[in-house]
Amino acid sequence: MLRRRVHRLLEVAADGDRLSRAVDLGLVLLILANVTAVVLDSVPRIHARYGDAFGAFETFSLVVFGLEYALRLWSCPENPRFADPVRGRLRCARQPMMLIDLLSVLPGLLTMQALDLRMLRAVRLLRLLRLLKLTRYSSSLQTFGRILRSKAPELVSTLVVMLLLLVMASSLMFVLENDANPAFDSIPTAMWWGIATFTTVGYGDITPITPAGRLLGGMVAILGIAMFAIPAGVLGAAFVEEQQRRRGRRDDRT
Amino acid sequence: MLRRRVHRLLEVAADGDRLSRAVDLGLVLLILANVTAVVLDSVPRIHARYGDAFGAFETFSLVVFGLEYALRLWSCPENPRFADPVRGRLRCARQPMMLIDLLSVLPGLLTMQALDLRMLRAVRLLRLLRLLKLTRYSSSLQTFGRILRSKAPELVSTLVVMLLLLVMASSLMFVLENDANPAFDSIPTAMWWGIATFTTVGYGDITPITPAGRLLGGMVAILGIAMFAIPAGVLGAAFVEEQQRRRGRRDDRT
Amino acid sequence: MLRRRVHRLLEVAADGDRLSRAVDLGLVLLILANVTAVVLDSVPRIHARYGDAFGAFETFSLVVFGLEYALRLWSCPENPRFADPVRGRLRCARQPMMLIDLLSVLPGLLTMQALDLRMLRAVRLLRLLRLLKLTRYSSSLQTFGRILRSKAPELVSTLVVMLLLLVMASSLMFVLENDANPAFDSIPTAMWWGIATFTTVGYGDITPITPAGRLLGGMVAILGIAMFAIPAGVLGAAFVEEQQRRRGRRDDRT
Amino acid sequence: MLRRRVHRLLEVAADGDRLSRAVDLGLVLLILANVTAVVLDSVPRIHARYGDAFGAFETFSLVVFGLEYALRLWSCPENPRFADPVRGRLRCARQPMMLIDLLSVLPGLLTMQALDLRMLRAVRLLRLLRLLKLTRYSSSLQTFGRILRSKAPELVSTLVVMLLLLVMASSLMFVLENDANPAFDSIPTAMWWGIATFTTVGYGDITPITPAGRLLGGMVAILGIAMFAIPAGVLGAAFVEEQQRRRGRRDDRT
Repeated sequence: MLRRRVHRLLEVAADGDRLSRAVDLGLVLLILANVTAVVLDSVPRIHARYGDAFGAFETFSLVVFGLEYALRLWSCPENPRFADPVRGRLRCARQPMMLIDLLSVLPGLLTMQALDLRMLRAVRLLRLLRLLKLTRYSSSLQTFGRILRSKAPELVSTLVVMLLLLVMASSLMFVLENDANPAFDSIPTAMWWGIATFTTVGYGDITPITPAGRLLGGMVAILGIAMFAIPAGVLGAAFVEEQQRRRGRRDDRT
Repeated sequence: MLRRRVHRLLEVAADGDRLSRAVDLGLVLLILANVTAVVLDSVPRIHARYGDAFGAFETFSLVVFGLEYALRLWSCPENPRFADPVRGRLRCARQPMMLIDLLSVLPGLLTMQALDLRMLRAVRLLRLLRLLKLTRYSSSLQTFGRILRSKAPELVSTLVVMLLLLVMASSLMFVLENDANPAFDSIPTAMWWGIATFTTVGYGDITPITPAGRLLGGMVAILGIAMFAIPAGVLGAAFVEEQQRRRGRRDDRT
Repeated sequence: MLRRRVHRLLEVAADGDRLSRAVDLGLVLLILANVTAVVLDSVPRIHARYGDAFGAFETFSLVVFGLEYALRLWSCPENPRFADPVRGRLRCARQPMMLIDLLSVLPGLLTMQALDLRMLRAVRLLRLLRLLKLTRYSSSLQTFGRILRSKAPELVSTLVVMLLLLVMASSLMFVLENDANPAFDSIPTAMWWGIATFTTVGYGDITPITPAGRLLGGMVAILGIAMFAIPAGVLGAAFVEEQQRRRGRRDDRT
Repeated sequence: MLRRRVHRLLEVAADGDRLSRAVDLGLVLLILANVTAVVLDSVPRIHARYGDAFGAFETFSLVVFGLEYALRLWSCPENPRFADPVRGRLRCARQPMMLIDLLSVLPGLLTMQALDLRMLRAVRLLRLLRLLKLTRYSSSLQTFGRILRSKAPELVSTLVVMLLLLVMASSLMFVLENDANPAFDSIPTAMWWGIATFTTVGYGDITPITPAGRLLGGMVAILGIAMFAIPAGVLGAAFVEEQQRRRGRRDDRT
């Protein structure tokens, strides 16, 4: 009886009662507060002043998220798919969301032991995976996911062609600029210029200076427009199709 | 009788007479001239030479806009929704547009008293809210507003996913670059880099220099393309739907 | 008889004979060669070496384009719309394309007299207007023109909203950054930053450095995505409509 | 019999047996490994340490690709279109893909002889053309190719208008900035600024500093949005049409 109550509280249900929604909201807010703490704690001046408070908040969050994970695992068998007390729970724990939950708690537990400070920072970062849990609370993202999956071949093809053009353009740029411009000292460096130009980011930390290099750079920048226009066109068509399918279904009902 | 005449003059009506249109146009031009004055007055050299003229123009505008606000409030009860002399006027004054009108006059009145110069500058800025009044004169923006509202869930989802990826990518970039690159001194700084890269703005004031950082930077830049393509696709589909609905209505009439 | 022959030669006609097409092609090539000469002649080193040759080519082009303009004007009355020898020719000369033709010849004639060198450069630039004549030879641009005109209200609205947001964001940025950042010394300077950010160009010559300024900068950059997505959506819908209208016409014929 | 077996092995066939697919996969992986080697070998530090290994790998790849080319040419007559032992093979060798295969092997053979090191680098680059062979293995790119070809007039028109505006805007910018800003020393240099602004790349290595120049720069940046929105709209409409044609065909079958 209690296990079923806990299960219902933790699962996001459209027909959830008030308490269940309060638990959901509380967890979302705690995750957001946690991420904010990680971000702010990275500023040296803030860490010097409020480092202890952030540490205490970290311990508190750890207890809450740890408890949440334990309760989720304990109440798993309420879901008919994971009915078996042992095997069901194991399969339940292997779900992507449960793995993320575990990963977001584990590093915190590890940091309680003495560890190199640098490592700590890298490990603590994994806590940000908690943010991914927010998707558990969002349902409109599923349409996006479906559309992106259905257009995966086209999007991947665009990406492959883009990477192919990137390697070719960057290598050519390396040959054109290498002698006159010390900034282009290797093809990987030229590829850093290339990706910034193809995506029209254009940092400007590395730019061609020879006429031939600038001509090639201009052509790469124009090709970059196509790299935007093609996915925009593919996704636009996909969203139009989605709309027409929905309306078609509505028309069938009438 | 006079109140009705004033009400009609100030309201934007498609069947307005010549005088009403002249009043509308005059107000729009005065608002534009006012904003231009604020912008130009901020240039030190121009302020030194024409500061007094701008001040006089400011006082003149203040009187006109103050009068306009008073007349609008006085003639409010002509609108059946605000018929009651007191309560109607209060509800009328609570309309968003009336609040903006009030806000654009109040700071001007306040600056007539002695105030810290720095504050003055910040307060004077609110006058730019007068620009928003221009929307009162534009009707084609309403279609945009409707489409943006109808697609709000999709657009907000894109924004949330973008912010989520931004926090994760920036934190990872901080860990990768922090030791080798003094520019990445905290996660908030890394997020400034991240937002410039995700939106493909690419200022170039902070850029990664390690191979791992540049690899991550390239991936963020490519993801930035998706952040453009998805809203473009969503809005494209919405505009197509809008067209088909309009045409459908036209077909029904025939 | 000769006048009709000349008129046909100079007009772009789908059923033009071989000679007419050769004349068209020759003029296009001469325009392109001319523009290339202007561009190259602006490079100091090239001007020092080939300045005389470019000058001679300029004189030659001037004679050809002058002759072309004179012949066009002379043969105008062949077009029934401009039948009257005097009034017809005057109305013919007032057509936009004829004005551009005249403008591209006039400055050349003027430069034959002694003039300040600096002025010369600015005046000579008008010759580039000859490039616009190329549109006389392109027919697929008309569809674009029609679509852009039919969507003008939406595109202008987007532009107006963008300019409004630009002024407000730049003024706010000026207030936020002015004290800490000497780069933001006036609202016009802040607007230069703002336009570079809104359009996601992101030169990086002026960037905010305070936390509040960077927060605002990030929001402006994200709004910049919308400034791309809305026109892309509007135009996408317009092109879809154009296609469906064309197909509808084809279906009606069957 | 053996020739037919070889022909089938090398051709990409949907109904290929296991060995044929293994050969395809092996070649793709070898091409990718080769490109990676070229890229890494350009880094001076890596070349100093692993240059010999890369050289050996280059020789090995050369033998494999050379063998592949020879076998392809030998087995050509199995294709009925190239049945003639001599003329058929010649026509087979003139296919674009076979020319690329030959080009990707030839420079390698040439580098075995003594050549200037600089030349070597440029020539070796052609090996990257091997990457294009990957398209032999991708079929979803054909839809893209067809759509891009069917919309070629619109896309080329956009490009022509963009180049025309680029030349005009850059020349005008040169006149506006030349005296105050040494960075704008010629129209070609101004065009380098112009292309970076039109495509919203915005390196920031050359930026206008005069008020008039910045005003023009802002207008060019806004026009740059149109340069994105138009191809995105054209391609979006094309992809929508493609979908409707496919669905139409499906409906006809039912």
